[in-house]
Amino acid sequence: MTASFTDCANAIRALSMDAVEAANSGHPGMPMGMADVATVLFQEYLKFDAADPHWADRDRFVLSAGHGSMLLYSLLHLSGYARPTLEDLKTFRQIGSPCAGHPENFELPGIECTTGPLGQGLAMAVGMAVAERHLNAGFGDAVVDHRTWVIAGDGCLMEGINHEAIGLAGHLKLGRLIVLWDDNRITIDGSVSLSSSEDIPARYAATGWQVVECDGHDADSIRAAFDTAIADDRPTLVRCRTIIGKGAPNLQGTSKTHGSPLGASEIAAARETLGWNHPPFEVPADIREAWLTAGKRGAQVHADWAARLADHADRAEFERRMAGDLPAAFSLDDYIAGLLAAPQKVATRKASEMVLDAINAQLPETIGGSADLTGSNNTKTKQTGPLTADDYSGRYVYYGIREFGMAAAMNGMALHGGVIPYGGTFLVFSDYARPAIRLSALQQTRVVYVMTHDSIGLGEDGPTHQPIEHVMSLRAMPNLEVWRPCDVIETAEAWAEALATKATPSLLALTRQNLPQLREQAGNLSAKGGYRLRAAQADRKVVLLATGSEVEIAVEVRDALEAQGIGADVVSMPCWERFDAQDAAYRADLIPADALKVSIEAGTTFGWERYVGTDGLSFGIDRFGASGPAPGLYELFGLTAAAIVPQITEKLN
Amino acid sequence: MTASFTDCANAIRALSMDAVEAANSGHPGMPMGMADVATVLFQEYLKFDAADPHWADRDRFVLSAGHGSMLLYSLLHLSGYARPTLEDLKTFRQIGSPCAGHPENFELPGIECTTGPLGQGLAMAVGMAVAERHLNAGFGDAVVDHRTWVIAGDGCLMEGINHEAIGLAGHLKLGRLIVLWDDNRITIDGSVSLSSSEDIPARYAATGWQVVECDGHDADSIRAAFDTAIADDRPTLVRCRTIIGKGAPNLQGTSKTHGSPLGASEIAAARETLGWNHPPFEVPADIREAWLTAGKRGAQVHADWAARLADHADRAEFERRMAGDLPAAFSLDDYIAGLLAAPQKVATRKASEMVLDAINAQLPETIGGSADLTGSNNTKTKQTGPLTADDYSGRYVYYGIREFGMAAAMNGMALHGGVIPYGGTFLVFSDYARPAIRLSALQQTRVVYVMTHDSIGLGEDGPTHQPIEHVMSLRAMPNLEVWRPCDVIETAEAWAEALATKATPSLLALTRQNLPQLREQAGNLSAKGGYRLRAAQADRKVVLLATGSEVEIAVEVRDALEAQGIGADVVSMPCWERFDAQDAAYRADLIPADALKVSIEAGTTFGWERYVGTDGLSFGIDRFGASGPAPGLYELFGLTAAAIVPQITEKLN
Repeated sequence: MTASFTDCANAIRALSMDAVEAANSGHPGMPMGMADVATVLFQEYLKFDAADPHWADRDRFVLSAGHGSMLLYSLLHLSGYARPTLEDLKTFRQIGSPCAGHPENFELPGIECTTGPLGQGLAMAVGMAVAERHLNAGFGDAVVDHRTWVIAGDGCLMEGINHEAIGLAGHLKLGRLIVLWDDNRITIDGSVSLSSSEDIPARYAATGWQVVECDGHDADSIRAAFDTAIADDRPTLVRCRTIIGKGAPNLQGTSKTHGSPLGASEIAAARETLGWNHPPFEVPADIREAWLTAGKRGAQVHADWAARLADHADRAEFERRMAGDLPAAFSLDDYIAGLLAAPQKVATRKASEMVLDAINAQLPETIGGSADLTGSNNTKTKQTGPLTADDYSGRYVYYGIREFGMAAAMNGMALHGGVIPYGGTFLVFSDYARPAIRLSALQQTRVVYVMTHDSIGLGEDGPTHQPIEHVMSLRAMPNLEVWRPCDVIETAEAWAEALATKATPSLLALTRQNLPQLREQAGNLSAKGGYRLRAAQADRKVVLLATGSEVEIAVEVRDALEAQGIGADVVSMPCWERFDAQDAAYRADLIPADALKVSIEAGTTFGWERYVGTDGLSFGIDRFGASGPAPGLYELFGLTAAAIVPQITEKLN
Repeated sequence: MTASFTDCANAIRALSMDAVEAANSGHPGMPMGMADVATVLFQEYLKFDAADPHWADRDRFVLSAGHGSMLLYSLLHLSGYARPTLEDLKTFRQIGSPCAGHPENFELPGIECTTGPLGQGLAMAVGMAVAERHLNAGFGDAVVDHRTWVIAGDGCLMEGINHEAIGLAGHLKLGRLIVLWDDNRITIDGSVSLSSSEDIPARYAATGWQVVECDGHDADSIRAAFDTAIADDRPTLVRCRTIIGKGAPNLQGTSKTHGSPLGASEIAAARETLGWNHPPFEVPADIREAWLTAGKRGAQVHADWAARLADHADRAEFERRMAGDLPAAFSLDDYIAGLLAAPQKVATRKASEMVLDAINAQLPETIGGSADLTGSNNTKTKQTGPLTADDYSGRYVYYGIREFGMAAAMNGMALHGGVIPYGGTFLVFSDYARPAIRLSALQQTRVVYVMTHDSIGLGEDGPTHQPIEHVMSLRAMPNLEVWRPCDVIETAEAWAEALATKATPSLLALTRQNLPQLREQAGNLSAKGGYRLRAAQADRKVVLLATGSEVEIAVEVRDALEAQGIGADVVSMPCWERFDAQDAAYRADLIPADALKVSIEAGTTFGWERYVGTDGLSFGIDRFGASGPAPGLYELFGLTAAAIVPQITEKLN
């Protein structure tokens, strides 16, 4: 006996409701509602090989509605992935389980990205689809020819980032991106109509998307919609009309199935409704067989692809790029040696452009961009022509005024592999992108954020544009390296480290204003996060700690102190995360107990106690900024050597 | 001779280009492009009285495209507002000038809100329009009957928040909201077509908006569009087809006019093109007269309104609410006394709902809401029926899955006056709303953020939902009071302080899990930010500092230490900003030099050095969270008395 389509879909429903019940926590409604759509997708359309979740040319599947994680775990399990096992499913939402409450890309192969923060999965899928077309342009149909599929709910569509993501996808005509909208008309608070009256298909159509509909519980209707989606060269929204929690006879169609276990009696009733007469977590052999057969669909396709790759002229380069390795010959040493030989006074945003020119010439995998501040962020170099719907081989994305969408798309690109994305905006607008920066960090992606205009030094644009708390609040985020280089050398060093760091995103905070080249020593000293830029000549009484544009001030302060016979070190601290990772001896040598520690940074002083202690001095800005020319603002906020030196000498007395 | 319409509009162009030139910094393109539209608006449509910028029933005007600030400054100056004076205009973008780079609501009456961070002005306008309809429902047409007008650029429309804002406005049928879209087809990077292919009118129509078009340089066309906008009961997008920098003959229509001075020669050419033969900053008397006459249009309307208000039955209540004063009798003392008499163990999110019930019964001005997490944030009480398109008198907004749009709308409500908005989401999603939280703080608005599920204590949803860096990164923001209460009493105290604080937003970080009532002392001790919850009985060796759910752990640790004869205080620190504002003696009494300081907080330890110093102990979580039941997570991260006590005793030895 062969298992029917309905049997296969019901296996998802049963596993989902059973796992949520066992965990006494979770979201059964979405997996039960989208089980039929997902079954058609995984059994008939999605290109994958369960035996090799890392196959480079697999279709990407993104569960943007991440709370429905049991849908994904059920699909991976039934399709024959090595994990999750049945035992794994039984540990759903328990500590140590790979089946976490929301899908985590670092837990299980087959999870393309971490989802749960609504809207971001779909926006990451846009980046994946960009990466696919870009690599296709470089390596051809023989080795890069896959689709990106997304399941998204009403939450994903209502979030602001949806507008940014679909605008970018429509503009770039990402025809291989297909979004399956779980149109169940329910949100947590109740009916969608409580909060929205939008004609979603019309909105998508306005943004250059094809929109098709299907009955999300009718396999033929689903297939017809998928076929239409595939046939078009626009991205497609498939409106899947579904019933949330389908199969739970008393609760389906209501928000009660969304985020809580159904309960024993409703589960018993659902088993009866579904005709699923099997104990919890048990899937009959014929249904298992049907799923496993479907899971092997891709094996031959994969083998054929491997044969094509073996014969491909650029095989080694393709494999290098998909592995995320930099070319063996890549180096910025010559570039930096040139700077040491001929110092330059430029803004660090300009320094970033200069080193990017050296990087982009050596690394074909970089894809740059900016959220409509190209000339201000200095993110475009001569190697990076525009990536457009007409030419996906370009290496520069005009993201538009879409900071959040840009950041999420960069996450998707990095997760797809084969490219290294970087993108810019003003540092103050890192707030707009912050939820995606957090997902860069959580997902361990190599994304480089080029955040310019990093302090009051931007001047006249005033407090809405002047970061105060931003650098510090980003330092507080786990697994993010925040760089605030003081000159052209440190900027190059920060870029070198950012590119070498595969599992950690980097954020560069760069100045609008020019800065002198302060570094004289060779070697990547920034790599340790902090180092002695100037050593005391007189007996050391003071250690000055500073970052970025304030290192120049620290050097002036130091010179003034030395002129008074007071010895002072200057420690440049371009990356706190790196510094904190050094051993105690290294840190104690730079920040000794027996000196007055003084920090200078044009941002909040909050957090500097880590280094200056409770008896040090911190010079910074603990209020919002102001509009005016930058030099006057530095005076206003007391960030000048003239203002700082007397306070240090007074403290010493 | 009477000045022509064109003369009046050109006065804006001339002042704008002259001020930007004098400042050698700024954005002339938008003011010159929208000068005609703005002239029609201010001279013929906008209801205002330059003699009283605070008139409660004035139309609100929001320059969402805040970089075009010289448009607003020119309009206020020409229309006869006391400020900005001509001298003020000459100090544009200089330190101390009320004419800051971007419009700041705290600098000049007539600036309804701070703009510059794109998209937020329009989203705040949605909140203003909600407040207007809500107050209209309460006080009637006689005293509340005004419109909200917005000028927005392509940037405002491309940002994700635009989707959230217009979705909410369309759903709530805010027919008195009119958005004038400066459709100049230019962004900073160049043509809009570089990054967008969207049919904006179709998108707005899909969201329930009326869309009309006009030639933005033809007064009659503009008037016709405005008339159509006013006549409809939907919100209206007026597509104003304009030429950026209009009047600058060689640069108009290009991004070069956007963000830089035109330069002396182009300004000279523009003067010729415009027929503006007057020196910089000089406006001929007839043009001044025409503008001043228009500026007085509203005086009689205002007087008539004042007469109606004088006779209004609820005059005192209306004036109280518009002044933002709480009722004289408002008090939570009885409520808190009841708690002290009968302690309760509830989650602080539930404690918040309990005190909100006491608040909402006394304060008709509160408007609650949630971004689709009503049952989780516990933001709805029995007094707050839904605010809908059919009934604006409701006091609860179902914001949908729109965290950023909610926060910005709340800013708009608070700025409008007459209401006190509060709204909820999960604390981790404060990141989504963060740019608007920053504008709450910068604009000095009384907005209360109800952020629940504030740590790993939320359990199974895992790292995407567990705040780690959030509380600390919000503490780093100027003028925001972050509260993390430890029990039902502190929650009530935090609410009392949040409501009493007119010029500072408050953010409450609340638990999902139940917490015992720890407070025994009466009086609002939380108001000082930190206080001694338990005093050492043995000789004090240790001071335990904790917030929120970890205060319970600190008390357990203390009891264990005391059992070993080690004296330990427990200091609860629900609000760092308040604590830091206390005098040195108060702070030193609580955090003495001669004790080991130990912090316990289920978030990043980064920042605790401020209180524990470099030789204290900090127990927290310096990585992302994990999925699992909460008690197990507290064990996993070492946040239990059993794990902490031995580390303290070891440190003491």
